[in-house]
Amino acid sequence: MSTRAVDSRLRDWAYLSGVAEAPCAPLSAFVAEVGPEQAARALRERTLPPALDGPTQSRRHRDTVRADLDLLAVLGGRLVTPDDEEWPSWRWLAFSTATATGVRDAVAPLALWVLGTAPVEELTRRAVAMVGTRAASGYGEHVTAELTHDLVAEGWTIVSGAAYGIDGAAHRAALAAGGRTVAVLACGVDRAYPAGHAPLLREIAREGLVLSEYPPGTTPAKHRFLARNRLVAGLADGVVVVEAGWRSGARNTATWARHLGRPVLAVPGPVTALSSAGCHRMIRTGEAVLATSAAEVIEEAGRIGELAGPRQGELDLRPTDGLDRVSAQVLEAFPARGAVNERQLAQQSGLPLAQVRGALPLLEMAGLAEWTEQGWNRAR
Amino acid sequence: MSTRAVDSRLRDWAYLSGVAEAPCAPLSAFVAEVGPEQAARALRERTLPPALDGPTQSRRHRDTVRADLDLLAVLGGRLVTPDDEEWPSWRWLAFSTATATGVRDAVAPLALWVLGTAPVEELTRRAVAMVGTRAASGYGEHVTAELTHDLVAEGWTIVSGAAYGIDGAAHRAALAAGGRTVAVLACGVDRAYPAGHAPLLREIAREGLVLSEYPPGTTPAKHRFLARNRLVAGLADGVVVVEAGWRSGARNTATWARHLGRPVLAVPGPVTALSSAGCHRMIRTGEAVLATSAAEVIEEAGRIGELAGPRQGELDLRPTDGLDRVSAQVLEAFPARGAVNERQLAQQSGLPLAQVRGALPLLEMAGLAEWTEQGWNRAR
Repeated sequence: MSTRAVDSRLRDWAYLSGVAEAPCAPLSAFVAEVGPEQAARALRERTLPPALDGPTQSRRHRDTVRADLDLLAVLGGRLVTPDDEEWPSWRWLAFSTATATGVRDAVAPLALWVLGTAPVEELTRRAVAMVGTRAASGYGEHVTAELTHDLVAEGWTIVSGAAYGIDGAAHRAALAAGGRTVAVLACGVDRAYPAGHAPLLREIAREGLVLSEYPPGTTPAKHRFLARNRLVAGLADGVVVVEAGWRSGARNTATWARHLGRPVLAVPGPVTALSSAGCHRMIRTGEAVLATSAAEVIEEAGRIGELAGPRQGELDLRPTDGLDRVSAQVLEAFPARGAVNERQLAQQSGLPLAQVRGALPLLEMAGLAEWTEQGWNRAR
Repeated sequence: MSTRAVDSRLRDWAYLSGVAEAPCAPLSAFVAEVGPEQAARALRERTLPPALDGPTQSRRHRDTVRADLDLLAVLGGRLVTPDDEEWPSWRWLAFSTATATGVRDAVAPLALWVLGTAPVEELTRRAVAMVGTRAASGYGEHVTAELTHDLVAEGWTIVSGAAYGIDGAAHRAALAAGGRTVAVLACGVDRAYPAGHAPLLREIAREGLVLSEYPPGTTPAKHRFLARNRLVAGLADGVVVVEAGWRSGARNTATWARHLGRPVLAVPGPVTALSSAGCHRMIRTGEAVLATSAAEVIEEAGRIGELAGPRQGELDLRPTDGLDRVSAQVLEAFPARGAVNERQLAQQSGLPLAQVRGALPLLEMAGLAEWTEQGWNRAR
């Protein structure tokens, strides 16, 4: 594709990213089916599936794409899409699986608005989410710092939500230890939320990544925090809840993690502290495994990091059950025997080369394709 | 039986209680088979089974029974045996089951040397064991006191080992709350161990019970603490470990509890405190359920209190598998249909009335016999 075509396609992704409130399962399905250009055209021309009429009605004709992309450029950011090599395709395998088992809204983001220089896929390859209450105790902040320090020393990236309390302590400790950290926002990356964390967010963008599935200008809202939590869980190999009250947003992140097959760990504390009540509750009910050290976190998260998705058997699915349409199409393009290269697969499947390249690591992680010196093979 | 015969039989129990280091499985089996009088005679006359030769060799001819019983009388105590109504027969059902599944030394005590006025069976009918490290923290002692206070308020008896730290805190809190508490010793009840707890032990004997399977004069020893722990677990419906270091004696009590089908609960604490490391470890490995309140303890212990033994199915045994010889004999004495009274069962089985009376609640708990207005029936 020409640069002009690439730019036009990127603008389509940007348009789609804001045309419905994310996550929007029918929109994601439509884009997966017809591709971003045709989906954007259909929406603009109102030749769209009936299911999309409602969700896109109010924003279909608002086109702030150019302004959004310009603002992002000024901030030094970029829009990362499934066309990009840094798109963490394999991270979304579990989203497809969760959707297949009936979890509403467990859809992958259409695109990510990103501040920071590191490639998203690379930075989140081995990642732990550290989350918890905004009303953290001194104990909670201390334990967050200790765990983060030790995880960073082992090369793990710390993912969190940039909130006050445990989130902030995790980001700060990762930065202090010279580690890598990713802040996932429930608003546009041009917004500093909470305002008191503006300097922290600037530092995270400089040293790690600040990202959001919402276009610039999007304000934080309750439902966006819940949607954001699924990305925090999805971009990590495991979620650690350091402190949580009896009713805590951290439990929502933990629930997402379970749906996505990620292990959930909770740190115990004094039974006299309300800030640990949610952690104790999750351990009691089996929603979380008790964790006291980074080694115990890695023991759980490491397994998933290697498997990249829910453990087989745990959901009792065949390996192909969780595949999105593109990956399934690439898989079908394989000959029964013998090796092929990416171009041959693109030709055979009729898919763009970038999509084939995105799907291959996913198929490899799922144990369906393997790379040899001769090229790509269908796994037996 | 005449008073004289009763006295003689009691002396036999006292003799047997000290003739081998308790617990002694072959001795218990022998006594169960031939009764205390014949067993004592056989031992004194050396017409004993070969398996008993070694374990009883050094103490067979030492007869301190009269002195032991006299000393006990001076202390205001009594020897409680399977002949007594207060003998907590049903508590030992799980011991038989554990022995049947191959747990060494999981044998019921032959008799109990007791200080205090309350009947043993009654005082331990609804009981929770509170145990933990001697090196308790202020947090641990505080939580022990809180849990004990709330358990006592719900009518639960607190069983523990009278050690420094968590044990002592549990006994003291039970007494302070006007509750009932039982101290199980690893030495004779004439000994104050630890010495610093002499006043506490005197108060426990006044308000609750101090008991031991060892005759007066027995000194504390490491193996006796381990054997004592099985009685702490056995006399309670559940064990709560409040604080325990990485290697802690409390874990031994917990292991006994698991073998005996009693739930084990552990209280979490700060991950920075070594005194909680053993609790966290037990929760992580599934050896214990996390507990933060008396309500959560009762939720677990209450179930067993009602079932009185390992939950059926958990050990995959038939109801009759765990029966001791006496209970099995009483069960066989039932007619296939119709009700009988205790005397008829004694006649039919050839067992003393007291043994029949002891076995019936056990058979009822095991779901093998039931009480109706017409008398006792074999359960279908």
